[in-house]
This record gives sequence, structure tokens and C-alpha cells, in this order.
Amino acid sequence: MDKHTALSELKQRLAEAGDVAKAASVLGWDQRVTMPAGGGPARAEVLGTLSRIAHETFASPETGRLLDAAAPLEDELPFESDDASLIRVTRRDWEKERRVPPELSAEMTREAARGHQVWIEARKSSDFAAFLPALRRNVELKHRYIECFEDFDSPYDPLLDDYEPGMKTAEVKAVFDVLRPALTELVAAAPDVDASFLEGDFPIDDQRAFADEVIATLGFAPGAVRLDPTVHPFCTSFSNRDVRLTTRYQDHDLESIWSTLHEAGHGLYAHGNDDSLLRSPLAGAPSLGLNESQSRTWENLVGRQRPFWTYWYSRLQDRFPTLGSVDLDRFLQAINRAEPGLIRVDADETTYSLHIILRFELEQEIIEGTVALEDLPEVWNARMRDFLGVDVPDDAHGVLQDVHWSGGGMGYFPTYALGNVISLQIWQKVREELPDVDDALAAGDVSPLGDWLRDRIYRHGRKFTPKEMLERVAGTPRIEPEPYLAYLRDKVEGLRTLAPA
Amino acid sequence: MDKHTALSELKQRLAEAGDVAKAASVLGWDQRVTMPAGGGPARAEVLGTLSRIAHETFASPETGRLLDAAAPLEDELPFESDDASLIRVTRRDWEKERRVPPELSAEMTREAARGHQVWIEARKSSDFAAFLPALRRNVELKHRYIECFEDFDSPYDPLLDDYEPGMKTAEVKAVFDVLRPALTELVAAAPDVDASFLEGDFPIDDQRAFADEVIATLGFAPGAVRLDPTVHPFCTSFSNRDVRLTTRYQDHDLESIWSTLHEAGHGLYAHGNDDSLLRSPLAGAPSLGLNESQSRTWENLVGRQRPFWTYWYSRLQDRFPTLGSVDLDRFLQAINRAEPGLIRVDADETTYSLHIILRFELEQEIIEGTVALEDLPEVWNARMRDFLGVDVPDDAHGVLQDVHWSGGGMGYFPTYALGNVISLQIWQKVREELPDVDDALAAGDVSPLGDWLRDRIYRHGRKFTPKEMLERVAGTPRIEPEPYLAYLRDKVEGLRTLAPA
Repeated sequence: MDKHTALSELKQRLAEAGDVAKAASVLGWDQRVTMPAGGGPARAEVLGTLSRIAHETFASPETGRLLDAAAPLEDELPFESDDASLIRVTRRDWEKERRVPPELSAEMTREAARGHQVWIEARKSSDFAAFLPALRRNVELKHRYIECFEDFDSPYDPLLDDYEPGMKTAEVKAVFDVLRPALTELVAAAPDVDASFLEGDFPIDDQRAFADEVIATLGFAPGAVRLDPTVHPFCTSFSNRDVRLTTRYQDHDLESIWSTLHEAGHGLYAHGNDDSLLRSPLAGAPSLGLNESQSRTWENLVGRQRPFWTYWYSRLQDRFPTLGSVDLDRFLQAINRAEPGLIRVDADETTYSLHIILRFELEQEIIEGTVALEDLPEVWNARMRDFLGVDVPDDAHGVLQDVHWSGGGMGYFPTYALGNVISLQIWQKVREELPDVDDALAAGDVSPLGDWLRDRIYRHGRKFTPKEMLERVAGTPRIEPEPYLAYLRDKVEGLRTLAPA
Repeated sequence: MDKHTALSELKQRLAEAGDVAKAASVLGWDQRVTMPAGGGPARAEVLGTLSRIAHETFASPETGRLLDAAAPLEDELPFESDDASLIRVTRRDWEKERRVPPELSAEMTREAARGHQVWIEARKSSDFAAFLPALRRNVELKHRYIECFEDFDSPYDPLLDDYEPGMKTAEVKAVFDVLRPALTELVAAAPDVDASFLEGDFPIDDQRAFADEVIATLGFAPGAVRLDPTVHPFCTSFSNRDVRLTTRYQDHDLESIWSTLHEAGHGLYAHGNDDSLLRSPLAGAPSLGLNESQSRTWENLVGRQRPFWTYWYSRLQDRFPTLGSVDLDRFLQAINRAEPGLIRVDADETTYSLHIILRFELEQEIIEGTVALEDLPEVWNARMRDFLGVDVPDDAHGVLQDVHWSGGGMGYFPTYALGNVISLQIWQKVREELPDVDDALAAGDVSPLGDWLRDRIYRHGRKFTPKEMLERVAGTPRIEPEPYLAYLRDKVEGLRTLAPA
């Protein structure tokens, strides 16, 4: 077959597989945002069918034949061109996906759904023993999944690779080995800060109005985004012009602000994808870590800093009069405080990555079989004392707190901390190339920052590997923890020198 | 192949085709209720892919082979059994669908989408000439569609059959020939009624609260239904426990009440389907007419009558104090008034079917070629004068008012009027078998009515043809206009004898 014909047929095939996967995403959004509870069983069937069709379309031998026939174009065209990238990225995806037998995929999907249900109940009653059999089955399936691959240094590598393509366990470990002692020390040194004014009566309608007002300034095109409430916030998109943010409003705090900014960061990534990548596997982001670096950028590097709040704080005070007596310094101090706690999703910036490192280490031990699954609660609790100095009262606030393991999602956690680290590597470049970024943010103008990030990162979607992207944007393919640690040191130091608590 | 194996494989195949079609429905709901406008192009691609996959799965020769192999079971099992019904109904669906070449289906889908866009603009500027080429293409495609079929009496039959399986044009004509003169006479005889208090200031939040309050009493299981606002209300469902109602709130009238009850009627039908029909082509209703008979039942035969409002009117007055000075008699008179108007969707019960008969006659003439498409506005306007005595000021309020023709939806209109007629045939039986239904409704209890309708109609889904269903529930397979006309005569007579306007 002619290479151009092959490429054109390949694109059509990938577009259709992508359409089906996108339909599944819409159904997933609906399930989490709007679906009446009674719709669950029918929804599970539909999602199962769509996932089978998408897999069969993508992983078929025909995809491989078209890839082979189109291969000469990869060398002829520039590396950065859409077409060369499509062939390169698709081959990698295809070679990974076809190694996994459909029966194993189906079994993993089923056990994940089952494990999720069991976990919900087990967490309610803080009963790890009730969760243990489901965890055991999911771990067994992970072992069978790992066996589908060859040439890895650590059995954890293939799991990590699902979320962070090309990343090795040893590389993550090297980064985390630097972070752990430094963070532990920082957390211990952080001063007590008065944040009592962040708990109170904050009507949800007002939070919603504030979130809408902020979102409207972030650079989304009109009619390209919506924001809905849900229980566990997430972001998904069905094209660069159909971006769905979700957030969680609680009437006793203002956390919805940062939850919204976090998801908006993911959303801006999807929104910034070039139109030429639509309906192709190149839409998206190179890895969860890179995607997370951008949610963290908007949540923290923008949304917890003085420039952003120089513009927004009086507007926030207008909506929530109890903040009228709290000056900007005290507000900034409170939203940047460092306080060890039990729950990852409630953790502040300084303690957050310690929660992740604990999970990363445990996951490797689980996969390597060096920890017995029944001992997990005990090991968890001991490490929480070591890492963060906190005592875990029960498993619901300990080993059962996260959804990930219930659905077999091992290898996912480290990407959260890598996102934190990467966000600072990129932010260093932002500072170098946009020296006036703080002034713009203080004037309520995010467009210089948004334009820069879109131009350097978002528009490229998945064309480059995480390392290629990091090299392009930050000048090195390596994940380097120093800028992140320097940022946190400054933060903790700032807590001392800001207005006294 | 063994007949039992064949049936089991057939069910699996149909379930998967149905899953894909259901995914498309979810995407359609999302498109009309939640999707940001920018999502349109990507959504069209995804829907195109899903519709192709659903068609290929269902209409494939393999479905035919499985049907043949399972055929002996159709005779062995009781006619009413799920399995015999599945084979019977699927064979009919399959034989119809496989006659239409996929290229023609695809072209119809494309031209429908195009026609829809053209129509939106043409209606805005009331410019029929701008719409004419799109209409012409859609009519040409209808002719090609009709050519896929044989053995029809009228070329309109295959179009009608898409929405009203087994119904012949001549049968509809016979019903409408009785209705037309009787309705024209009734409308002319209807007294003027004061309904000025139905226009005013009705805050949308209060309308929403009232709609939610009513919906909660209609017999939906908890967590099985939701109600959302949209521009053109509709109902769809993704299982009998995931029913999506939509309605339209306008702050200057109370039409949302009847719009909500109308869609709730469709929703109760879907909700009442037996669990055994889930994930099979038997879920649903035998025809649009039968489905519409139930939306009309809840909107009109329940929602515009004294028993229902005996319970609800004081509650409505509590929410909308301007109604405090309007007694129940005057309210009933106003919501049952008969007033000729230009717009079908705003028409009252008495004039509504005349709008339909006009369209039904025009559609036949269009298909038979006895009216030139460019003459449609003139013909339309002349008939509106004849049928309803009204003068059409422009095409936006005339021939361009409805969406249906823009998308090639010919044959659909008559089902609205058939629904009206059928609703009264069924209601006669309700009155015979539930003599206390009015007392229950006056006490706010719809359960005797809801249970009866579910038992007689809703639970059977599509197991029976429209005629079989009508015979089961109303004692005759024929659509008989007399009960409907008697009901409207009583209504118009009641307008005179109720409190004077």
C-alpha cells in the first residue's frame, strides 16, 4: 500500500477509535456529574462495550499494517510535524496496547469496578479486612499485566509507564530520595499559622459566582468550557472547545477556589491543544505528570501567590464580608500554611509530596512482594508517623483513604508529586522569559502567562514524550527537584516573615 | 447452530448494538442540555461514528443468520414471551434496516445536519427561499429512501412506518378526514376566555420548585429521573432507571408545568419498561403515537383537569401569589381555552391536531409531487386560513416554524395527532376500570393510574406492534377518533358553562 494512502487510512481508523473513546469520556462525565444513581448498571454495560470496541479498533493487526506501510513518512517528514509525530506516538501506543490480551483487559476492568464498590463500603466502615480480598485480586492482575512486558528494570516500570511514558522507577526514586528528607525537615520547621478565618460560613452560590468570575478571566474561548459541581473534582474534555471542569463547593470553607483553579489548569492544557491534533491520538498531554504540572501551576504558582491575589482579594472580600477584617498578608499566610495532616487530598503544598512518596514506596513493595498485603495498615501508620509525625486513628483516615488501589490504579500516585516538581522547572523558565508576569497577574491579566504556556506546551498535545517536552520547555530531560525545594523553602521562610500569626 | 445458542448470541449482539445507540443518546442529551457550543463539530464526528457502528452491528448479515437459527423458538415459545417477541420484533427491524444502503443512511444524516443549520438561519430571517435548496435535497433523499422498499400502497407509507410501524397512510387519512371538519367546527364555536392572569411575572426558581414537587409525586423510583432546562424540551432515557426529562422555563408564563408533565409522560413510559427488556431492542414503546398518547395523557388528561388541580391548585397559588385572586374554575377555564394561533407548539388541545393535519396533507403532496416546493409558503398560508382562520404574517410563523422537514423528518408529524386520539381510547378504559381515579387524583395520588398504565402498557416496551398494543389495552386495533372528539366537545362545552369569562 502507498504510504500516503496508509497514513490517511490510519488517521481515519485512529479517529474512529478516538471517537468511541471520547463517547466513553462523555458517559464518564455524565456518570459523575449528572447521572441519576439508578443509571449505574446500564452505564457499566455501555462503557464496557465502548471500551471493547475502542480497544479492538485501535489494537488490531490492521493498525500495525497501516503503521508499517506509513513508516517511511516518519523519516521523510520533520520530527515535529503532525504526521511524523502521529506515526511515532501511535506505534508506541499500539505496541503497548496489543501486548495485553483483551481477556486480561476485560478482567482488569471488571475487577476494578468490583474493587471500587468493595472499597466504598470498606472505607465507610474503616474495615481494611473487608477490602483485602479485592486488593489481592487487583494486585494479582497487576502481576499478570506486568508479565505482558519485557525489558524492564523494575516490575513497577510497566505500571509507571502507563501514566508517565518512558519514565523508570529508578528515576522517580532518585527524585524522591532527594525530596523526602528535605520535605520532612521543612514541614518540621514550618511555623503555626492562624487560618481560622478560612473556616466559616461561605454560601455556595457566592463561591460559585466567584469561581465563574475567575474562570471567565483565564483565557478560555467563549462557549468552550463549563464548570459543574461534583463530589470528587476532575477535568475532562471532548475537544479543545468542549472542556468540562468540575469542582466541589462546601459551605464551610473556600477550598472550591483552588479546586477550580486546579481543574482549570488541566482544562487550559486541553483547550490549548492545536486544532490540527483534534480527533487524533496526539490530542492531550504527554503524561499525567506534565498535565498535573499545569493544574498545580494554576492552583499554586498562580492561585496561592501575591500577584494573583493583589487583583482578586478585594473581589473575594466583597463576596465574603467576614474576610473584610483579614488583610492580604494574613490571607496569603493562611493559604500557604504548612501543616501535617492525615489526608492526601486535603494536604497543603509543602506536605503533599510526602503523602505521595509514602504511597510510591508502598506500591513498589506491594509489587515486589516485600510487604504482605495484610500488614499494609500497620506499615502505613508507622510511616505516617515517620514522614509527617501524625497518628492515624483508623484505616478510613489511613490506608483506605484513596480510591486508586481499589481500581487497580497502581503507578498513578507518583505523577502527582512529579507534577509538583515539574511545575517549578517550567516556572523558572516562565520567570526568565516573562519578567513582567507578576505585574500582569497583579492587574488581573493572565494572558501573557497563558499564551506562553500554550505556545510552549499545550498546543503540542502528545506529540512529544514527557522527556522531549521537558527538554523543550525547561532545557533538560531530567526531572530536577531543586527549583521545587527552593520554592517551598521560600514559602516556609515567608510564613515566618509575613505578618505574625 | 443450535437455536438456543443462536438466541443467546443474538441477544449479545443486539445488546452491544443497543449499548452503542444508547451512548449516542447520552451524547445527544448532553448536546442539548449541557454541551458548550464549541463542542459541536467534535460531537458531530463522534455521533457519526457511533451511528455507523450501531448500524453495522445491527444490520449485518450475521444478525440475519442468528435470527434464522433462532427462528424455531419463536413458534415454540408463547407469543407474549420476551424471547419470542425479541425474535419477532428484531426480524422486522432488521429487514427494514438492511434495505437501506449505509451510503444512503450516511448521506441522509449529513444532509439532515446541513439542512438543520440552514433552517436555523432561514427561520431567523424568515427567508423560505434560503431554505428551499436544503429542503429539495432532503426530499430527493426521501425519494431514494422510499425506493428501498416495496409493496406499499402510498409512497408515504415507508416514511410513516418509521415512526408508526405497520400504519398505512390511508388509515391515518381516514382518521384525519373525520377530525378535520369536526375540529374546525369546534374551534369556531369556542368562546373567548380570559387567560390574562397566565401571563405575568413567574420567577423561574419557583417554577422549578413546583415542577420538582410535581415530578416527585408521579411514581418515579428514587434516583431514577432528573429534570433539566433546555430550549426545546424532550425526554430520553438510558435505562428504565436513568430517565432524563427536560423542560423550558419562561419567566412570563407557566407553560413549564405542562411541558414538564408532557415529558414526564414519556419518562413514565420508559421508567415502566420491565427490567427483562433492558439492553434489548424491546425496551421503549411500540410507536411514537403510543408514546405520545402517554405524554398527552399526563399533560392533558391529568394535567388540565379538575381532579389534578383540586389537589395542586392551592399549592400553585402559594408559590405564585398573583393567582390568589383567581379561583379554580377560572384557572381551569383558562388552561383549557381553545384559541386558533399560528404556532403548533403553542397550540391548545382543541386546535393542535388541525396544525398536524395540515402538515400531514402537505407532506403527502410533497412526496407525491403534487405541490411544487417553491409554492409551499403560499399553500401553507391559504390552508391556515381555511383550517384555523388565521393569517400568517411571515414564513417564520408559517412554513418555516418546525424543525422536522429541515432534518428530513417526514412522516413524523401525524404521530402527534394520533397520540392525542389514542390517549382518549385508552382513557376510556381507564375510566371503566378505575372508577375512582378522579378521587385519587384529587387527593394527589396518581398511583392507581400510574400502576394501571404501567401494567397495561409501559412494562411491555416494544414487544407488541402499535395495533397489537391498542387491541390489548383499548379492545380494538383501530385508531378511533370518537372518544377524542367527544372529549374535546365536552371541553368546549365546559368552557361555556364554567364561571363566565
